[in-house]
Amino acid sequence: MKKLNALYAQSGGVTSVINATALAVIETASKSKKIGKLLAGKNGILGILKEDLIDTSLEKKTELKKLLYTPGGVFGSCRYKLQDYSNQQREYKRLLDVFKAHNIGYFFYNGGGDSQDTTNKIAKLTSDLGLSIKCIGIPKTVDNDLPLTDNCPGFGSVAKYVATSISEAGLDVKSMSETSTKVFILEVMGRHSGWIAASSALGKTNKEDPPHIILFPEVPFQKTKVLKKVRSTVKKYGYCVLAVSEGTRNKDGTFLSDSGSSDAFGHKQLGGVAPIIARLIQENLGYKCHWAVSDYLQRSARHIASAVDLKQAYTVGKAAVNFALSGENAVMPSIVRIKEKKYKWRIGKVALSKVANVEKFLPMRYISKDGLGITKACNNYMLPLIQGEAFPPYKDGVPDIARLKNILVKKRLKKFPIKN
Amino acid sequence: MKKLNALYAQSGGVTSVINATALAVIETASKSKKIGKLLAGKNGILGILKEDLIDTSLEKKTELKKLLYTPGGVFGSCRYKLQDYSNQQREYKRLLDVFKAHNIGYFFYNGGGDSQDTTNKIAKLTSDLGLSIKCIGIPKTVDNDLPLTDNCPGFGSVAKYVATSISEAGLDVKSMSETSTKVFILEVMGRHSGWIAASSALGKTNKEDPPHIILFPEVPFQKTKVLKKVRSTVKKYGYCVLAVSEGTRNKDGTFLSDSGSSDAFGHKQLGGVAPIIARLIQENLGYKCHWAVSDYLQRSARHIASAVDLKQAYTVGKAAVNFALSGENAVMPSIVRIKEKKYKWRIGKVALSKVANVEKFLPMRYISKDGLGITKACNNYMLPLIQGEAFPPYKDGVPDIARLKNILVKKRLKKFPIKN
Repeated sequence: MKKLNALYAQSGGVTSVINATALAVIETASKSKKIGKLLAGKNGILGILKEDLIDTSLEKKTELKKLLYTPGGVFGSCRYKLQDYSNQQREYKRLLDVFKAHNIGYFFYNGGGDSQDTTNKIAKLTSDLGLSIKCIGIPKTVDNDLPLTDNCPGFGSVAKYVATSISEAGLDVKSMSETSTKVFILEVMGRHSGWIAASSALGKTNKEDPPHIILFPEVPFQKTKVLKKVRSTVKKYGYCVLAVSEGTRNKDGTFLSDSGSSDAFGHKQLGGVAPIIARLIQENLGYKCHWAVSDYLQRSARHIASAVDLKQAYTVGKAAVNFALSGENAVMPSIVRIKEKKYKWRIGKVALSKVANVEKFLPMRYISKDGLGITKACNNYMLPLIQGEAFPPYKDGVPDIARLKNILVKKRLKKFPIKN
Repeated sequence: MKKLNALYAQSGGVTSVINATALAVIETASKSKKIGKLLAGKNGILGILKEDLIDTSLEKKTELKKLLYTPGGVFGSCRYKLQDYSNQQREYKRLLDVFKAHNIGYFFYNGGGDSQDTTNKIAKLTSDLGLSIKCIGIPKTVDNDLPLTDNCPGFGSVAKYVATSISEAGLDVKSMSETSTKVFILEVMGRHSGWIAASSALGKTNKEDPPHIILFPEVPFQKTKVLKKVRSTVKKYGYCVLAVSEGTRNKDGTFLSDSGSSDAFGHKQLGGVAPIIARLIQENLGYKCHWAVSDYLQRSARHIASAVDLKQAYTVGKAAVNFALSGENAVMPSIVRIKEKKYKWRIGKVALSKVANVEKFLPMRYISKDGLGITKACNNYMLPLIQGEAFPPYKDGVPDIARLKNILVKKRLKKFPIKN
């Protein structure tokens, strides 16, 4: 019997280590000798619908190896959410047609909460129809907001970047504070959850170290309290550093910065809360402010990835393939913390139905009493995730990267128009 | 005869490697056995006026060694420009009083163009008065805008950070461009000169690589041309990445983004041109844009410093002390490029009078014909400056840093009120 092929796709916002997961899927599938070709959807599920399938077997092994240190999504990702089966049978039918046409027996979908939901829906459909296709979700999100896993691959590296950047910039502001900038604001990602904002404090070893104030989406913005703390911090240390989540909200739930546009999942697209806070401080306290928005830099900063994160990103990819080969369906490999003190972890297994569409917020016990910092418990949880350096090789002064050919397999189906 | 003491101070915006220069001054002075104490002005020249002088001999050697990889200005810097002698004799007299009270025979001032001017004025005054004080300027500026030196310590590391960051973020945008963000804008420093903006292209190995468009302060902003190129780039590659200098200007010379506030040197304080360009593109072309402003992150990113830059930062500090010991006055060590192909450099010597108040702009032969990119000549000039990695040691997941005690010597003079 001809071996079944596998199909892998990346979904949602990419990370600096998602390609390590891709490499693990490719390498584990190849080593198993039980899987035929490993195809990859070009631009995620959209490429599957369009039958744009990349034949990864045509890539050089030496180039594929570089995926371990290439940020971004090497096969392309997308923000495209499948509707419920009842509303959009056409797309589900198309997916099954593509699976059938390309002899797909294994489907791996690498993404966040929305993507796990998609994978679950496809798994349900294929098993309802009695098709032997193993659908496995693979966790990935810088937001660290998936439930039932101790943490998410992608987060540790952003955390390391943010903790390092705010420590470095803090030293800069401190130097300048006597005559110039007294307040520095770094805006970080985190639409609904403050995991990334919290990580800004991981380089802090004493009260004077930056950041002095963290704004979380979980804590409604209290103007008076924040301004008071900025002033007292400047009085005490001469300067003040704030880490501000893009999702910082007013009491009524509206975002401080709301650009008005939405992504395909219906999430508001944000950015630019830092200048708003800067203006507020400058106008009310008269301090000169500088601000930075790290945006994509933070989630693509492979040059300062966490070794623990990289290892976990690879391992969930490997585990996903092994789950599929052992007959599992509609599950996702999770990361289970075994020990807190000397950090140890192992791979667990969770049902996609329990992961889909659940967002894990920063628990209140991780936020300090005044709402403007993190607790020891938070530090204990996060610090292990940023340990170890995994520097990429450099070429001519910049990190070397994989340059794949991404050659598509021959199409076997008719065109499928998609409203994008 | 009692050995004369030396006085070192940092000035203006700090860099990720200025502390390596400080360490070189301390170590070279100590090894010479000809210099007494090495004092450091707390917060630059301001600390000298206030007689806030740090006794560096009270620091642990192991901690001082860490200056090699600690960003920011460890003794504090300032933006404070001395007036001409004729306008402000009071401050000059005070400096001489402080020099005398602390037996200063050597003055090292580590900064950009304004600071070289200050050093030159002090040198002129001391030699007019027949005082035996050697005044040596030491170059430092991320802006790379000092004349008569091939490049400035601090620039190579920013260049490496910017080139790396835009390559990494470019991979991220490329992954997302099918359904989401099509345009990414990175705003970089550079008030009047486009050196940093130009460095964004150093990771580019072919036309498709980011950045696709660079906006320099030297080239007046041409809205229609830029929008046209954004559109054609998105049509061709699916996405477009722009590196935008904070000093991007309109034809009439006004900054695209002008916050309205000024620093002590009278320079307009900028920031926030990226969101302006983003809005322009979004409104005119309808593309979803993301933008980042790296601000202080870029000039404090010691974690990705250039090894060449670090070496040069140390060497100019060492050379400055040796100049002073060999009787030089009113000079600055420069960096001289010996060879272009296999990059080699040596230390040169320039008169402060020729450096002071001259800004070196990006030459037009470094800017491509369309004004939106760099030439091969520019790449040849810059690429050697970002070579080599000089990673700091990490502690608990973040870079380790020096924590100095910065103990002040006992004051011997009356208080000196300063209008700040």
